Amino acid sequence: MDMAQKKPKRVTARVPRGFVDRDAADLRAQDAMLATIRRVYETYGFEPVETPIFEYTDALGKFLPDSDRPNEGVFSIEDDDEQWMSLRYDLTAPLARYVAENFETLPKPYRSYRAGYVFRNEKPGPGRFRQFMQFDADIVGAPNVSADAEMAMMMADTMEALGIERGQYVIRVNNRKVLDGVLEAIGLGGEENAGRRLTVLRAIDKLDKFSTAEVRLLLGEGRRDESGDFTPGAGLNERAIQQIVDDYIAAAMSEFVDGTNNHAIRQLKASAFGTNPKFHEGVEDLASIADFVGSAGYGPDRVKIDPSVVRGLEYYTGPVFEAELLFDVTNEKGEVVRFGSVGGGGRYDGLVSRFMSQPVPATGFSIGVSRLMTALKNLGRLKTSERTGPVVVTVMDRDRMADYQAMATLLRNALNDDPSLPPVPVEVFQGNPKQFGKQLQYADRRNAPVVVIQGGDEKAAGKVQVKDLALGKELSATITDNAEWREARAGQELVDEAELVEAVKRILARPLSEKG
Amino acid sequence: MDMAQKKPKRVTARVPRGFVDRDAADLRAQDAMLATIRRVYETYGFEPVETPIFEYTDALGKFLPDSDRPNEGVFSIEDDDEQWMSLRYDLTAPLARYVAENFETLPKPYRSYRAGYVFRNEKPGPGRFRQFMQFDADIVGAPNVSADAEMAMMMADTMEALGIERGQYVIRVNNRKVLDGVLEAIGLGGEENAGRRLTVLRAIDKLDKFSTAEVRLLLGEGRRDESGDFTPGAGLNERAIQQIVDDYIAAAMSEFVDGTNNHAIRQLKASAFGTNPKFHEGVEDLASIADFVGSAGYGPDRVKIDPSVVRGLEYYTGPVFEAELLFDVTNEKGEVVRFGSVGGGGRYDGLVSRFMSQPVPATGFSIGVSRLMTALKNLGRLKTSERTGPVVVTVMDRDRMADYQAMATLLRNALNDDPSLPPVPVEVFQGNPKQFGKQLQYADRRNAPVVVIQGGDEKAAGKVQVKDLALGKELSATITDNAEWREARAGQELVDEAELVEAVKRILARPLSEKG
Repeated sequence: MDMAQKKPKRVTARVPRGFVDRDAADLRAQDAMLATIRRVYETYGFEPVETPIFEYTDALGKFLPDSDRPNEGVFSIEDDDEQWMSLRYDLTAPLARYVAENFETLPKPYRSYRAGYVFRNEKPGPGRFRQFMQFDADIVGAPNVSADAEMAMMMADTMEALGIERGQYVIRVNNRKVLDGVLEAIGLGGEENAGRRLTVLRAIDKLDKFSTAEVRLLLGEGRRDESGDFTPGAGLNERAIQQIVDDYIAAAMSEFVDGTNNHAIRQLKASAFGTNPKFHEGVEDLASIADFVGSAGYGPDRVKIDPSVVRGLEYYTGPVFEAELLFDVTNEKGEVVRFGSVGGGGRYDGLVSRFMSQPVPATGFSIGVSRLMTALKNLGRLKTSERTGPVVVTVMDRDRMADYQAMATLLRNALNDDPSLPPVPVEVFQGNPKQFGKQLQYADRRNAPVVVIQGGDEKAAGKVQVKDLALGKELSATITDNAEWREARAGQELVDEAELVEAVKRILARPLSEKG
Repeated sequence: MDMAQKKPKRVTARVPRGFVDRDAADLRAQDAMLATIRRVYETYGFEPVETPIFEYTDALGKFLPDSDRPNEGVFSIEDDDEQWMSLRYDLTAPLARYVAENFETLPKPYRSYRAGYVFRNEKPGPGRFRQFMQFDADIVGAPNVSADAEMAMMMADTMEALGIERGQYVIRVNNRKVLDGVLEAIGLGGEENAGRRLTVLRAIDKLDKFSTAEVRLLLGEGRRDESGDFTPGAGLNERAIQQIVDDYIAAAMSEFVDGTNNHAIRQLKASAFGTNPKFHEGVEDLASIADFVGSAGYGPDRVKIDPSVVRGLEYYTGPVFEAELLFDVTNEKGEVVRFGSVGGGGRYDGLVSRFMSQPVPATGFSIGVSRLMTALKNLGRLKTSERTGPVVVTVMDRDRMADYQAMATLLRNALNDDPSLPPVPVEVFQGNPKQFGKQLQYADRRNAPVVVIQGGDEKAAGKVQVKDLALGKELSATITDNAEWREARAGQELVDEAELVEAVKRILARPLSEKG
């Protein structure tokens, strides 16, 4: 019962590997960012919904990229009724389960959004965490690619609402059907070629980082990087490589010339794969998307048809998107690189119907919240509003703690009588009051604007000291003599007890420029 | 790659046992509630901090009540480096780890708050969930009970800020030292009596639900309830039972007479246990707390010294609190009961120092968010603000989807040009457009204020139909004849394409009373 008596063994305090703690500035900046995203989603008619962090493992499915073994990449637990549960690895699979379970009562189409933590049971590395936040929006019950076009436009709106200017981002759109058509046409259809298909897709996915020549190597015999590491290739023949790189990817690389996505669509139609039915169907979808976004005024500077987009998750069945940030940053190795993806998504027509006896088409988009925060930080667009620190009532005489507490209550109520204004924190110093200097250090550390001091003499005279810490700092910078400083009591004011609230209000209202 | 080809086995969509999904109304009401709580905490100088959902199991400690076996009640996973991790079961143990790990860089005292999900691996039951939210505030590095008094007052402020009126709630305060003194005095000190101590504490804890006579049975031979179930008692002798019930609990039950907590303190000092040093020390602490809260104007109608408060968690070492709601509700069995506890907390001086070579005193409070939401719902105080549904652009001609999408974009931008106003949702119908009636049903289901309609004829004439759904409903209630209804086109207006935005704005601005 009494822990002190138990003398427990000392435990080392450490956050688990791959997980992080988050401080006030970080959380407040995230809140502001999420509010902006939420507002955009709501103007498109999306509503919040939340699912628990656990799902039954069978309901979650095995759609993670790079996980061939069952449950790889996922945290799983066997429940006491012998059902396996897993922590969600994204927010799409749980949404699919939710919609299937509540299908009869939900409006169709069902527009929803949700921000939440997801979990990956992976080896943590620099910038790779095992718990991170995603912010998703989905339309379930939307069969037409017009819904995919809408998702892409909404993502563009989101980027701009966050202060990422046009030209600093682009929403790239491709279609899994187009990629499937390419793979089929070069003879990689069928279950037996699943592995090689993956290698080809990964090679195409590298186009935003690697040169065309390097991607050719990855499609063919493989590529040795500067460190000497060898990545085996897909082993395609020269003709197939040429078709992919020149006929297919040429369209991806070609710049739009007329302010529309028409050129990219024409290039795709003219490619060697144009006669493959799956490819053809996929390109028609992309043409519709280009038409939809174009009509709504979204040119390829915002939503760009780009056949090099792949997206790793296995459940996509149609259009796929990627939100890419185009400005350069310096990475941890000191190299200047394009910032890259902050989110993506696509159509997943099979995910809800896994649970149902009817097809339920759906499309959605997911933002990587911490990636996006890092991006906004780089752009100087992250709202890290400097908060005022607390008004600190100091403790001169520990026997009069009740008085100080009453003073703090008085101030707190008086300074917070308008709930539409930001809160003004007021607190009594609750540490060990023995050294008064520590109390002032604390106030300074907390960025306190005002410190309230009342010793025995002041109390006897019905007075209280009110100290403007910012003014005090400014003044003491101009005072060189120690005795002079004590005399001046920089920024300090002696007021009647009854005037305490007014005196504190005056200091809080005074802009710093006037304080000198 | 193509899921449709895989023909996966049908999976049953079901949320895991003991977990829940949460809809828009629930989440929005919670957001409003959390914002109110956050504001109160911030006026007291508390800042947000967040820890991950996993902790190393050894760092979490084993402080859950009713869990004698290791890890009982907790979800645990062995990491690939053979360290055990557990999902946090509360927000206090992770905070203790965080403070210990970041001790040098944090201000001391360290005031922080956090809302987050916690997890219990228990048998779920009615109203008992395995994932639920807590909202905590803690001061670490505060040795004086003045900090405990402050926590109690802040909780009272929180209740009132949420609209729970004075008299509908009380913050009850006791002290673990007092309880330890009682147990020691009746001969239940020492490791060998741990089990019986727990039984005694549980019996005392039942005082808010059971009669004194029933608590006597639980302290003695045991109690048989109406269903015939027998709960074994603590086996105390008659004298010990009398001391606890009459000398100790009498004080708890006695009403304050002078508007202060002084009477309760006097009763405790006069009790049979008054000579036990631990008991005496505990009562002195409570007397200080009564003094602190009294000086700040918090009478026993808000913060009440109440020796029947126990609190289940094992890590408490000093004052303990409980926020109790006093109004009656009807429970799931149809019985009228007092609503009861919505949160609690206390001093845990040993929890941070488990990791450290120095004592780190701390005190905190935790609110059960869903319990509190239920309470506010009962009081009619939950802000479930009715949102306007989306303006729905319908699809008359599926080949003109791009036009409809452009119309929606135009409306969305025009209706959301002031970011200080709530968002106005605008959407194109993205479902199957074949049956137009389904589109109107959808708009109705989403509580849409306006529907926009443009068929071929209207397009040719450069016109668009704008339908006020609320007005339409009012009017059609007064129209009995079907032909008349079609003629009147209830609530519908034909406007020039160029006037679309103005027409929609007019409808949104029109209060319902004027619409008839």
